[in-house]
Amino acid sequence: MKHYLKHDEWKVIEDQFHPEFNEITESVFSLGNGRMGQRANFEESFSGKTLQGNYVAGVYYPDKTRVGWWKNGYPEYFAKVLNAANWIGIDVIIEGVKVDLHQAIIHDFYRELNMKEGYLLRKCDISLSNGKRLKIESKRFNSMADDESGAISYQITPINFSGTIQIHAYIDGDIQNKDSNYQEKFWDEVKVGSSDNRSFVWSRTKKTHFEVITGQEVHIYQDGQKLAIQSKAETKEKYSSLQYEVEVYENKTTSIYKYAVNLSSENHPTSDFEAHLSSYLSNISSKGFDQMLKEQALAWAEKWNSNDILIEGDVAAQQGIRFNIFQLNQTYTGKDDRLNIGPKGFTGEKYGGSTYWDTEAYCIPFYLSTAPSQVAKNLLIYRWKQLEKAIENAQKLGFDDGAALYPMVTMNGEECHNEWEITFEEIHRNGAIAYAIHDYVQYTDDKRHLLDYGWDVLLAIARFWKQRVNWSENLQKYVMLGVTGPNEYENNVNNNWYTNYLATWCLKYVQEVYHEISSLYPEEAAIKFKNSHFNPTELVDFEHIVQHMYFPRDEKREIYLQQDGFLDKVIAPVDQIPTHQRPINQHWSWDRILRSCYIKQADVLQGMYFFESDFSLEEIERNYSFYEPLTVHESSLSPCVHSILAAKLGKEDKSYEFYTRAARLDLDDYNNDTEDGCHITSMAGTWMSIIKGFAGQSVQNNQLHLAPFLPKQWKSYRFKINFRKDHLEIEVNPLGVKVQNLAKHETEIVIHQQKVQIPANSSIMI
Amino acid sequence: MKHYLKHDEWKVIEDQFHPEFNEITESVFSLGNGRMGQRANFEESFSGKTLQGNYVAGVYYPDKTRVGWWKNGYPEYFAKVLNAANWIGIDVIIEGVKVDLHQAIIHDFYRELNMKEGYLLRKCDISLSNGKRLKIESKRFNSMADDESGAISYQITPINFSGTIQIHAYIDGDIQNKDSNYQEKFWDEVKVGSSDNRSFVWSRTKKTHFEVITGQEVHIYQDGQKLAIQSKAETKEKYSSLQYEVEVYENKTTSIYKYAVNLSSENHPTSDFEAHLSSYLSNISSKGFDQMLKEQALAWAEKWNSNDILIEGDVAAQQGIRFNIFQLNQTYTGKDDRLNIGPKGFTGEKYGGSTYWDTEAYCIPFYLSTAPSQVAKNLLIYRWKQLEKAIENAQKLGFDDGAALYPMVTMNGEECHNEWEITFEEIHRNGAIAYAIHDYVQYTDDKRHLLDYGWDVLLAIARFWKQRVNWSENLQKYVMLGVTGPNEYENNVNNNWYTNYLATWCLKYVQEVYHEISSLYPEEAAIKFKNSHFNPTELVDFEHIVQHMYFPRDEKREIYLQQDGFLDKVIAPVDQIPTHQRPINQHWSWDRILRSCYIKQADVLQGMYFFESDFSLEEIERNYSFYEPLTVHESSLSPCVHSILAAKLGKEDKSYEFYTRAARLDLDDYNNDTEDGCHITSMAGTWMSIIKGFAGQSVQNNQLHLAPFLPKQWKSYRFKINFRKDHLEIEVNPLGVKVQNLAKHETEIVIHQQKVQIPANSSIMI
Repeated sequence: MKHYLKHDEWKVIEDQFHPEFNEITESVFSLGNGRMGQRANFEESFSGKTLQGNYVAGVYYPDKTRVGWWKNGYPEYFAKVLNAANWIGIDVIIEGVKVDLHQAIIHDFYRELNMKEGYLLRKCDISLSNGKRLKIESKRFNSMADDESGAISYQITPINFSGTIQIHAYIDGDIQNKDSNYQEKFWDEVKVGSSDNRSFVWSRTKKTHFEVITGQEVHIYQDGQKLAIQSKAETKEKYSSLQYEVEVYENKTTSIYKYAVNLSSENHPTSDFEAHLSSYLSNISSKGFDQMLKEQALAWAEKWNSNDILIEGDVAAQQGIRFNIFQLNQTYTGKDDRLNIGPKGFTGEKYGGSTYWDTEAYCIPFYLSTAPSQVAKNLLIYRWKQLEKAIENAQKLGFDDGAALYPMVTMNGEECHNEWEITFEEIHRNGAIAYAIHDYVQYTDDKRHLLDYGWDVLLAIARFWKQRVNWSENLQKYVMLGVTGPNEYENNVNNNWYTNYLATWCLKYVQEVYHEISSLYPEEAAIKFKNSHFNPTELVDFEHIVQHMYFPRDEKREIYLQQDGFLDKVIAPVDQIPTHQRPINQHWSWDRILRSCYIKQADVLQGMYFFESDFSLEEIERNYSFYEPLTVHESSLSPCVHSILAAKLGKEDKSYEFYTRAARLDLDDYNNDTEDGCHITSMAGTWMSIIKGFAGQSVQNNQLHLAPFLPKQWKSYRFKINFRKDHLEIEVNPLGVKVQNLAKHETEIVIHQQKVQIPANSSIMI
Repeated sequence: MKHYLKHDEWKVIEDQFHPEFNEITESVFSLGNGRMGQRANFEESFSGKTLQGNYVAGVYYPDKTRVGWWKNGYPEYFAKVLNAANWIGIDVIIEGVKVDLHQAIIHDFYRELNMKEGYLLRKCDISLSNGKRLKIESKRFNSMADDESGAISYQITPINFSGTIQIHAYIDGDIQNKDSNYQEKFWDEVKVGSSDNRSFVWSRTKKTHFEVITGQEVHIYQDGQKLAIQSKAETKEKYSSLQYEVEVYENKTTSIYKYAVNLSSENHPTSDFEAHLSSYLSNISSKGFDQMLKEQALAWAEKWNSNDILIEGDVAAQQGIRFNIFQLNQTYTGKDDRLNIGPKGFTGEKYGGSTYWDTEAYCIPFYLSTAPSQVAKNLLIYRWKQLEKAIENAQKLGFDDGAALYPMVTMNGEECHNEWEITFEEIHRNGAIAYAIHDYVQYTDDKRHLLDYGWDVLLAIARFWKQRVNWSENLQKYVMLGVTGPNEYENNVNNNWYTNYLATWCLKYVQEVYHEISSLYPEEAAIKFKNSHFNPTELVDFEHIVQHMYFPRDEKREIYLQQDGFLDKVIAPVDQIPTHQRPINQHWSWDRILRSCYIKQADVLQGMYFFESDFSLEEIERNYSFYEPLTVHESSLSPCVHSILAAKLGKEDKSYEFYTRAARLDLDDYNNDTEDGCHITSMAGTWMSIIKGFAGQSVQNNQLHLAPFLPKQWKSYRFKINFRKDHLEIEVNPLGVKVQNLAKHETEIVIHQQKVQIPANSSIMI
């Protein structure tokens, strides 16, 4: 846990330089616009601890797998997030000494992530080894308005000298992924080039041949006047630099404006690369930095208008939730159905892939409530487009007849993970993907989606479950052997309750969808069924499994068992583990963890959260009371589910406690791992803690339900949500719940189990 | 399955060159003398498929671990068999063209592994690209008599030319392990040097600083006369070569004799390296090649005298069993308690370690019966010496109070394996190590061993089991969760019957040993107990576990269950798997294998083999009949156990069938993997099939038992065994069993449950 960042409602602030935490700060202050992003590296060279990271959405690399011992079914190659050309580079050389904060004396330092307007600001006052003192102020952003570009304003003010300085503004494409399995570089140069004040690096990935052209245009100003100086270009392999000699004067500011563009072959024909780059640069540079920044602030204002959660009475909580919402919006804007939400977004490389079940289980509710429905829909279409690969993936494991197993981790539909117990066995992900379809349709009422996309995916997943279970002669039931549930501290277990439950639900849901689309779209549905080689007798098989699935249960305690044999473990609450042994994954051997009763993240409870209405409050209470004390929450995805269930059970303090564990996870580097990047997907969980937990939002029988409480630590909280055609603002304060209907039609919602009508453009207070 | 090698009782013969199988042949024709060994590479350069391999016993390298995802408890480094300096190199250059069988026209080729006398012979008749035709005949061996040396006779006969040829006899220390995890080289040069007709390469391993000096001395003869020519020395990094220009004449043979010595810092002070090398070379070269070869034949004659199994009526079986016995003797001679039996011996690098539980479970019976008792004892002392490391290993996993977990794979006591399901969970190896102590003491009656070595190891292992089980409130029994049994096609199972049984046996045996040494050696034992911080109340805990251990069982079938939940699988015999899907480990995904009922190697049956007398024949029969049809035998260690149990159950044809699967495993490349090296440890299993299976050898109540049958494919078989002071030759032929007492005292053994007295130096026929 670290507390070096200042609390502020709209900003994240580091008010003195902490070089020891620099890689953490680089993660936290990362910028992105859904298309491209980068860690908060300094523009100038830095010889201290740093992880240089620039990323272009959708551009990945199939690195050669590294495993101890190969297992049949593993992918030979797997796609990973690709560190791309560094476009922010500005080196400043003063009398032969390069500006480098690691070598300089730092008199003053200030770094700010401005979440309200979406930029990164840094100010510093330094002395170089040759005694030259100067101030630097840099401001940069990845433009939301022109989302293939970014801009930097970099200002230098000499404090104790005048003279000639060298400025080298560069693009460096000669970069290597930190997580490269065999220390290989993944990019080849296509071309580098330069013209007056412009240069570019055009690179192509090995094997996959993605191409990206990264260009810059540089203007230098003094006294509000653009200097009429010529750049000298220096190019070498995968590198191009624009070099300037500038006369600078004591206490007089020189401003360098750098405009940069990243075009990817995923979005543009490469034949047109140079021309398109040129016109894009012309467009943004003629707008100018200030205008671009204005548009950036405007774009963020729009986002905040629909996304913000306003918390009164707790600045740390306010900063935390805004940081989470900010990063989610930086990572995924929902415009492109080929993109998804990486667990580290644009803030680091770790976990080598973009898409986990996190998207379906945790992120979709956020985008459903806060963005146009197309945003969540695109995330579903992403999986639909990867269905063929999921079928291939299942075939590799021996399944057939159109069964699909979606990968655990992926960039392009191929599996990117290589631990058999996860790759082959953590198959509950398939269920989450089906659940998200249900979640989306229930929330949006977009039934057409079931015909156009949902059916294909649901049928393929149902076919997988059908083949994955087997009939146990012994139990006279269907069982599911050899799985890993969400609790990855158990591996290769039999009859994980969550997985069995989810599979059974899928097999029910696909039947429901079959009847629904058959009746709504009879002709189109018939074509779909034919194209998916569907035979209605499949439904009979599905239903047979539904009727005869085995669920492990302890009759004495009246609880579901996480898996077969769970009660043969020594059952002792987490608080009996000595503090110095926590987190157990850093202190215990793997076999000890596996043998223990300790649960990494919600497993049975994840199922109760998904299917809340299937269980009585008493049932949820019994299971919660049994499992929560055994849960170590060593996944960032765990607390939010507990927070939501605790809220439902009226355990308000517990609910708040779980919320606080996750809300400032990265800001406070709670798990000592933010240097690898931020926990983007779990940020959506934090949002859920408030909306689904504190505010008790759910959808039942086509109606929006709320059951809010106000944590006693807060004065009030307020947020907006979309639900179908409705647009509501909800405020929870000590007087009650105020719901404002922002739409032009009357609506009815359910608050604390009571139906409430709210006229158009009006509010009610309860 | 390949049949390119000729059947012969004493030789393995390849009578025409099969370049496509060259790596297989290199494995099969490997040479070794317990101290050093090598694959059957050609002396001269070969640009075709080859794996150059030279190995020096006890010299290993701690390579950096390669894993997909790190787990707590993994070793950072692990020791692996180290490919060492190549000392056989002889290049022949004729008018600028180097002899290279891959580039030459081969008119005739013959390669022979002479098992009777222990050498490798190769003859060939070739034409080079420049038209020069010559014959080569090379003979080489690793000397059993002078076991740090080897010698080569390399003869060249020009067929169609006379002229000057270049001969480069070299030592090349610049080699790399094929299985190097990060393509690193593991050796540094200390020194290279040469003098007239001699040269050496002295290398040191990185990190561990083992040193090996490898030297050669070369003599060249024509017409029985040593040529008085001077060598030109060429040295470069890690390489030294003696170069000769020799006039050769059509149809006249030139003989090159190369004597080589490998000295290791494990056996000699490095200060003395060069001097010792020099005197060693002088010693062997003055003996001369022919005398050395005579001594080699003599050494092997002695081995065969005690080891041979003579089979009449089946040349393939005869060759098979002799090949197995030959390789076992090449790998381990039992002189050095720091050495063990690598699964590939000196025939390849695969499996990166020297010691597996194979040694205790399969190899010890072979050495017990066929070699002086010190040989098996040294294998036990090897583990005793590594006890501290085994305790450290257990500590890494969270065990304490002197509990030991021996590694799954090791060179130096450190764990060399990095799959959690094996490294952390395949803990039954600990039981096999305890079992071997029992096996040894029962066979030799060396009770003193229990005091000197056995107690320490047994107590530490018992302490491990005590901590590894846990009390299940649910079952009111001790359970053992999260293990992998011998059947590695199941992972992380609960209550593997074999492991539970073996652990329980250990906990009983340690009590027995406690009482035995307390009564036999009261004072020394008291010191031992004190030194091991032993408290007799530990025995009470051990006994409590013995009394309350849980064993999974199916009451309906009256069989033990391999593990909890085994019957929830689909149970279908192996013969229902389509042939084209066998072996399943090459055709099925890992998760499919895990979920299936198919068994890689004896598991419950391994326990019934170890503890045969604990079970009635009917019990063995029921378990055999249930498990054998589910067993795919995809470990080379599986068939022998089945062969032995089938013999016991009177299933003679089945017993023979299992024997044949293993006996020619490498000669026929049965599993398509002999190119990686031979399956050395499973060769002992083949020996067991005959001795413990066909001949029904066992020890019961301090007496040797036999229950032989004659496979109907054979006319007779005959072998010798030691048992305590007895020395017997047993022949089984159609008339019955002939037992010859070769000792000078009367003895009593039990044949087919009948006691039989045999006077000194006499034989009986039954």
